[in-house]
Amino acid sequence: MPQLRVALAQVNPIVGNVAHNSALILEHCRAAHEAGAHIVLFPEMVLTGYPIEDLAMRASFVAASRRAADELAERLAAEKMGDLVAVVGFLDQVPGVPSGFGIPKNAPQNSVAVMHGGEIVARQAKHHLWNYGVGDEARNFVPGSTINVVQVHGVDVAIAICEDLWRDGPSAAARAAEAALLLVPNGSPYEANKDDVRFDLCARRAVEGECALAYVNMVGGQDELVFDGDSLVVDAEGRLLARAAQFSEELLFVDLELPAATDTMPSTDATFSGLHIERTIVSAEPVAPYEPLGSPVATPLDDLEEIYRALVVGLRDYVEKNEFRSVLLGLSGGIDSTLCGAIAVDALGAERVFGVSNPSAYSTEHSRTDAEELARRTGLDLRTVAIAPMVDAFQDSLSLSGLAEENLQSRVRAVVWMGLSNAEGHLVLACGNKSELATGYSTIYGDAVGGYAPIKDVRKTLVWELARWRNAYAEAHGEVPPIPENAISKPPSAELRPGQLDTDSLPPYEILDAILDAYVERDLGAAAVVAEGFDATTVEHVVTLVDRAEYKRRQYPPGPKVTARNFGRDRRVPITNRWREHLG
Amino acid sequence: MPQLRVALAQVNPIVGNVAHNSALILEHCRAAHEAGAHIVLFPEMVLTGYPIEDLAMRASFVAASRRAADELAERLAAEKMGDLVAVVGFLDQVPGVPSGFGIPKNAPQNSVAVMHGGEIVARQAKHHLWNYGVGDEARNFVPGSTINVVQVHGVDVAIAICEDLWRDGPSAAARAAEAALLLVPNGSPYEANKDDVRFDLCARRAVEGECALAYVNMVGGQDELVFDGDSLVVDAEGRLLARAAQFSEELLFVDLELPAATDTMPSTDATFSGLHIERTIVSAEPVAPYEPLGSPVATPLDDLEEIYRALVVGLRDYVEKNEFRSVLLGLSGGIDSTLCGAIAVDALGAERVFGVSNPSAYSTEHSRTDAEELARRTGLDLRTVAIAPMVDAFQDSLSLSGLAEENLQSRVRAVVWMGLSNAEGHLVLACGNKSELATGYSTIYGDAVGGYAPIKDVRKTLVWELARWRNAYAEAHGEVPPIPENAISKPPSAELRPGQLDTDSLPPYEILDAILDAYVERDLGAAAVVAEGFDATTVEHVVTLVDRAEYKRRQYPPGPKVTARNFGRDRRVPITNRWREHLG
Repeated sequence: MPQLRVALAQVNPIVGNVAHNSALILEHCRAAHEAGAHIVLFPEMVLTGYPIEDLAMRASFVAASRRAADELAERLAAEKMGDLVAVVGFLDQVPGVPSGFGIPKNAPQNSVAVMHGGEIVARQAKHHLWNYGVGDEARNFVPGSTINVVQVHGVDVAIAICEDLWRDGPSAAARAAEAALLLVPNGSPYEANKDDVRFDLCARRAVEGECALAYVNMVGGQDELVFDGDSLVVDAEGRLLARAAQFSEELLFVDLELPAATDTMPSTDATFSGLHIERTIVSAEPVAPYEPLGSPVATPLDDLEEIYRALVVGLRDYVEKNEFRSVLLGLSGGIDSTLCGAIAVDALGAERVFGVSNPSAYSTEHSRTDAEELARRTGLDLRTVAIAPMVDAFQDSLSLSGLAEENLQSRVRAVVWMGLSNAEGHLVLACGNKSELATGYSTIYGDAVGGYAPIKDVRKTLVWELARWRNAYAEAHGEVPPIPENAISKPPSAELRPGQLDTDSLPPYEILDAILDAYVERDLGAAAVVAEGFDATTVEHVVTLVDRAEYKRRQYPPGPKVTARNFGRDRRVPITNRWREHLG
Repeated sequence: MPQLRVALAQVNPIVGNVAHNSALILEHCRAAHEAGAHIVLFPEMVLTGYPIEDLAMRASFVAASRRAADELAERLAAEKMGDLVAVVGFLDQVPGVPSGFGIPKNAPQNSVAVMHGGEIVARQAKHHLWNYGVGDEARNFVPGSTINVVQVHGVDVAIAICEDLWRDGPSAAARAAEAALLLVPNGSPYEANKDDVRFDLCARRAVEGECALAYVNMVGGQDELVFDGDSLVVDAEGRLLARAAQFSEELLFVDLELPAATDTMPSTDATFSGLHIERTIVSAEPVAPYEPLGSPVATPLDDLEEIYRALVVGLRDYVEKNEFRSVLLGLSGGIDSTLCGAIAVDALGAERVFGVSNPSAYSTEHSRTDAEELARRTGLDLRTVAIAPMVDAFQDSLSLSGLAEENLQSRVRAVVWMGLSNAEGHLVLACGNKSELATGYSTIYGDAVGGYAPIKDVRKTLVWELARWRNAYAEAHGEVPPIPENAISKPPSAELRPGQLDTDSLPPYEILDAILDAYVERDLGAAAVVAEGFDATTVEHVVTLVDRAEYKRRQYPPGPKVTARNFGRDRRVPITNRWREHLG
């Protein structure tokens, strides 16, 4: 049977930076070509970055993407790589640019270009647009109408873009078209506890399509999404042949032996499920037999390590892609800001992390000593700015009490952080966790201030788990555990009045998080949550807090998606929303 | 020909408050019935409010809407209004609740219920989902598959929901079904300078469908949208028969003489464009001849009055629907906060509007006197809190200079406003205009603080026009012009350093607004903007400011949509976006 060497380029593009992404693609084509690959496959929309949202509908951006794709194909030939088949995701446009109701402006398409011999020899647009959770593709793209089959060295190769793989159809289409290999470019964000759904799906589709399947995903953070890579290849029996490590760039090679294309060319007007099957012959001649190489098969990470890595990569790329030099965060000695400090040091290195301790009249002694201990262990920069003089200056005019006085302290801290940020150029981190965000247990324009929120999608009980995991990981690797034990073990407090504890306002976090899981993650109604065995009064309390906190959530900085229902792009409800769940 | 009295209920529902909306509908049914109407028509999704976004996919909410619709039909019969045909928009669900990829969770539909005799006798779901600009319906709803024709007193009546009217099809369907009247329930947000596109469209569709057409729209504010009503009725020749006033609730009656339904019932399996035509006979007997009443025909408002009213209604409903008692805003004496103060007084009454003057070391004398003059003219409450002591307290620790020092003053003001808001329960208003928002000319966590931004979609040059219009309107009505002349005529300044003027950082507003119109409203690329005759350096400057200000815009409070490209729901681009327009 004919052989093919396929390279999967698991790379980290930057949304909007077409020149950077072109250079990134070219560099990986060179490496693939040098290593003898016949096909190199890139992630979905690698040339523009992903997701581009309403940028899709800017005529100047569509034109830039199309021009860059043509130039890339020419450049490959100019650099004597014209024989390499490069499959590159980009932003394309329906020919003739139709307009009208129901067609996104400028008729953009989420497409792949098949480059060979200095030109784009085939292009295929995504059929099934991703239109739920964090995906908004029905708003931004025109679905494709073709299935492309490209013959490469005597092997028929078909394409399915991301979401297309999840629907019934593409593998059946590959089978109908008698393709021996299905290429699947993806922009598939990380989500915790997916088990191994990607491998399971790839294996099933390969068996259904009677073809090998190469799945390539991007890596890196993009605003609220983190892409984890996990690119993989299975054979037509669904057996795993190769798998890339998560969260890092990699050029994964696999050698395949595949059935030869049938001699007879099917009719040019073949269709499948309303999609036109387009065939292109790049080369009918099989490659000379060669000795296959072995491929790496990475083991997926354990749950806690996977989440921690996602948080680190999300923060790192938000900082790098937005060209910040450093981050600054308020360090209260509490577990949330302490974990954020550890994540920041892992993401950027200690020399780019600046902590501020802002003791007030109500701060405990350990709030300062725990922050100092974190700085000592990790090497981050820590300074102290006491807030009593500023708080007093406000109180001389305003004489606030109760909640207004509590919030004042939090806001004075935020003004200090933002002043230092403006003066020294740091990105401010907001250190709230998902349980707080869900219930509105934060001060707007106070601790909610910042440009990025590293743990906004991490529930409080998971914050503790991750802290313990990080310390255990350090110990297992002979390093100093970064997180002071006292930050993990002490009872959580906002320290905005004497003796305050979170449990004064909220149920214990084990119960709160379980109710939030039912009400938010699983979308159960309040009555259904009670039916799971929770106390009705507690459920009513939590549900009311969640329903009323939407405005605060909207104003919170972006942070990396970890769960199926993050409070960014996943779950969009009106601010003015008087829907109240009833328990009856 | 048979007669029908149709009532169009132009009402203001509240998103999520199903009980309130049910009562509102019932009250209007009573009034319509009492006035002898045979049909009463309500806006799109009036029972749930609109738009409901991801609430559509909560099973408990779908169930509440369906239950409320059934109860409403029963209630109408119980109150002896069973003979009235009530056409009520609600959140429905595909029978059997199919699930799978491509189907929104719980299979929700944007539907209307036709109520008669104590039950729902027909239901029709929207065919063409609104999926551009501020609409996200493809994410939230399953499109409908039926066209319903209901015979009422011997007249065949068809239905087209909102967006369905804009596509080719529904009027042709009405014609194919030989309906004599097309009912069109809408949730159509206000947008300036639409000319009279609604009337033109209704007239064209009526002629195409050879049927009279009754178009009902909601009124009121919902987060970033304002619905302006403008309900209207045209006859089969496209002549305007009745029109409701904009921005206020109204029950509009019209008497129609319409062709009788043909005796022969078309086949039960008729289809049009893939939609199944379902027929229901409510009553075949024409009503006894009666003397028709005349109908009001309101004149649409002039452009400036229309925009001003939209801003007033948007603010009023955000305050009322979120149950705030009052608003608080910083009054700098500049035109933006002054106009916001005037709008707030018009929306809520002076006794619910609280202004704060926060003079600093760099404030001019007129910043205080102009604010006092506004308070004197309108009667709003004004207090003064000087910020120098608080600024000094921060500077003792931080010694900030330059932009950091400027921002510090703005943020200290915001802490004062939020302290007063927390202590006294006011909603804080952010007073920035669209030109500032576009270019990022504001301080995040400073003047950008607040729960609602009344003029965030109003460009600076329009701010001045609206201020002049408001004063002229007062003079024409023998009232005191609310806005001090000096606030309109003085050159704009942030007053954050000595002698500062906006033109130190930005082009003159006439030029800036024209460039923003091309780059933002019309989506032109930078090179195309230059080709319109603007200076290339100025365009590059403005485009760079706009591209880099996305994070600030995201953090800005919501405000009423006025233009085709507001910076809320209309235009969604990534924060991490390195796309840079090139002039070459």
